[in-house]
Formats: sequence, C-alpha cells, structure tokens
Amino acid sequence: MSIETRKRVEVCFTPSGYEYFKKDFEIVVVIDVLRATSAICAAFENGVNSIIPVPSIEEAWEYKKKGFLAGAERKGQIVEGFDFGNSPFSYMNPEFKGKDIVLTTTNGTKSLDVAKDAEIVLVASFLNLNAICQWIVEQPKDVVCLCSGWQDNFNLEDTICAGAIVDQLTNTGNYYSTEDSSIAAKYLFQSAKKSHLGFIKSSSHRRRLKKLNLNKDVHYCLTPNQTSVIPILKNGKLVKL
Amino acid sequence: MSIETRKRVEVCFTPSGYEYFKKDFEIVVVIDVLRATSAICAAFENGVNSIIPVPSIEEAWEYKKKGFLAGAERKGQIVEGFDFGNSPFSYMNPEFKGKDIVLTTTNGTKSLDVAKDAEIVLVASFLNLNAICQWIVEQPKDVVCLCSGWQDNFNLEDTICAGAIVDQLTNTGNYYSTEDSSIAAKYLFQSAKKSHLGFIKSSSHRRRLKKLNLNKDVHYCLTPNQTSVIPILKNGKLVKL
Repeated sequence: MSIETRKRVEVCFTPSGYEYFKKDFEIVVVIDVLRATSAICAAFENGVNSIIPVPSIEEAWEYKKKGFLAGAERKGQIVEGFDFGNSPFSYMNPEFKGKDIVLTTTNGTKSLDVAKDAEIVLVASFLNLNAICQWIVEQPKDVVCLCSGWQDNFNLEDTICAGAIVDQLTNTGNYYSTEDSSIAAKYLFQSAKKSHLGFIKSSSHRRRLKKLNLNKDVHYCLTPNQTSVIPILKNGKLVKL
Repeated sequence: MSIETRKRVEVCFTPSGYEYFKKDFEIVVVIDVLRATSAICAAFENGVNSIIPVPSIEEAWEYKKKGFLAGAERKGQIVEGFDFGNSPFSYMNPEFKGKDIVLTTTNGTKSLDVAKDAEIVLVASFLNLNAICQWIVEQPKDVVCLCSGWQDNFNLEDTICAGAIVDQLTNTGNYYSTEDSSIAAKYLFQSAKKSHLGFIKSSSHRRRLKKLNLNKDVHYCLTPNQTSVIPILKNGKLVKL
C-alpha cells in the first residue's frame, strides 16, 4: 500500500499542542488515563446513559443545582460539595445506571473541550484499547490521539496509551505516522508493553495518586481491555457509540 | 544519599515549555542536535573565538554589514545573502579560526534566547556529551536540558541527547528526576543507545535534512564525543568555557 492511500495516526502530547494538529484529522481520540477517560469508560460499561463534560467547577455546580449527579475533581481529589470525582469505582454505583451525569476534571475535560469541534471525538483509555482500535480501522479517516497531560505538560501514562493505539493501527499496515511525538510514543509503549504498571511506577502522576491512596484506581486504569464501550461526543454530551 | 542532597536533572521538550522550569534550575543546557548546537561545538573545536547567537535574520544582517562573519539558517537551508548556515562543516574553514561570528538558526538560537537569563547557559550536542556531563557533575547546581525542538514541537534527536545527559548524570547516583518528560527522554535514549542513527532514522527532521542532501551532516551530528569543548553564554556571546 502506498503512503498516499494509507491513513495517518499521530500523537499530540498536550492540549496546548493540539492547535498544530487541529486541521488535519477527522478523528480525535482524547486520553486521560489517570483517571478521567478511564472513569468515563468505566461509567459507560456500568450503564450510565450520558456524561456531560464541563471545563469549570462553576458549570458543574450549576448542573448539580438543577438536580444532576455531578462530579468534580481537581489535583486528584474530589472537590468539596461534590459527590464524586474521577475514580472509576465511583461510577460502578448502581444508582448511576441509566442516568445523565456531569463531570469536570483537572485535565481530561479540558482536552475534550479543546477537541470538541472535530468531526469525531472519541474517549480512550487502556480499558477500551482494543475496542477503539478495531472501530477506528474501519473508518476511512485520519486520527490524532490527544493526550491530556498534567496541567498542559507531557505525561507518561497518556503517551504510552497513545503509543499503544499507534502501535496497533500501524501494525495493520494501513496507517503511517510522521511526527516525532508519535514515533516516541510508539517506542515508549513498546518499552512498557510487558508491564504497564512497572514502567509507569516512576511517573509523576502515579506518585501523586499513590500519596492520595489511589493505588487501586491506578492498577485498574492500567489494565487493558476491560470493556468494549467507545464513548463518543455528540452535541456536547458523551454517549455510547 | 537522600533525595534532598541529590541534585535535580530534568528535560524540557520545547522552548515554549521552558516557562514551567525557568525558576528552579541554575544550569540550562541548550540542545539542537540537527544542527545548531552541533555546529556551535564544531566551531569551537575548530578555533572560533566567539559566537553571537541572534534570534532574527535582520539582526544577523546588521552584524554582517558591520563586517562580521554571519550565518543564517531557516528550515534547514542557508538564508540567501549569507555565507553559511548551520552545517558543522562550514565552521571547519581555517578562515574562521580566532574569529567572532554571528549566527541565527530556526530553532537553536531561539532556545538560547529563551534561556539567556539563567545563571549558567551551556550548549550541548552529542559531540560534547561526555565533556559537558563531566563538568556538570562537579557543580552543586540543578540542571535542565532545554530541547530546541522543531518550530516549538517535540523532536526525537534533541530528546534522545537530553536523555543521554539524564542517563549519565543519574548513573552517578547524585542526581534525580521527577518530571515525566525526563523519564521518557531517558527511556528513549536507552532504547536508542545501540545505534543513534538507526533510531533517529525515522525522525521527521532527519527526513527533512535527507531531502536536502545533508546525510553527511546528520551522521556527524549523531556521533558522540568528538570534542571536549563546552560552549557557555557570557554577556550575550558564546565562548569556550
């Protein structure tokens, strides 16, 4: 297959870097492994009807006042006054089944906001890795993986998850990457492949969560293919594809 | 040695990311492997007296009118009207010995400009890798490696060179890193260690230079430890330490 007929897959390390990629990709895959996009996948796996991602705590609060179930996380912790943050385990509550919930997080909802005008915006994590790759390969469209990072800085776990997507798509022979960020992400994933948790244990955000006693969350978020749900953004709401 | 008495070494992927690191590091090591900082090392190895890095072509031109030897490179090529760009081989000309020269390049001089207010600003490339690490370990100071990138995007060769510095410093047991960018750079260097050229052959900038028939330059720039010079910024001029 010639380079012209193959599709392109690239990795953008941070929301602020997205401007450079914005025009060239029909599909944006938003990644925030620890923990927003993992929590979103877990929520749909557990029967949530929709998730409204909002960038600010104020907006989340407005929804809460209207009677919505609303979650807010900043710097790894639940914001005071809210009932839940971005722990995937919060969303396994049977009360959430069939509900429309509202969520704001430090990094993940920001990257959803940055990507919102793309043709197709999907949510990925290690949890739905194979499912999302299998769906993407069927589409005649170029794809950019948008890592949420940590306060707009590079982070290891999102990059490795993006690298796993690049690895899987390029292995089909139908995709190519040209950006150094994508090549690096793929190499980092290949180094990490045998033990996600082992590689990421040195990551700064993992240390941050460990201090907050969130090891169980981290372990869950780094375990691939626990669900086949693919959350997609439709009219400002995340729903199941 | 406890973490408190060890020194810190980190990697910043792009000039625009430097703001985040700015306050915490006494030493900034500026890296632009292909080719500005490699050319600067080659120039000092070949007896140049000083190099005045300027961010714009206009400033370089002003110096040229005053009789300076002035070089300018944009997008890998020599700017029209200038005698040289950033090929290391240009600086091996015997006419350059003992001279003060002026240089502006796409990425490298920009990162020198961004870093200029730090206590100590050094210039590194693969060419002076061991020399610069040996000097740094003697200093009781924290160090950040500032990659020039490509038009403010992540690039592979600068990151791998920075990773080589992190690897060498942390191997002494006297340094630690906390940022994910530094951990990733070190892993990428370790993957690339056996063959710099092999790993970087997929890099986007290398492909760009290959199109411009600059393979000889690339090979030279990726060969470690060809010189022991350490260029340092003093009052706006690069001189030999």
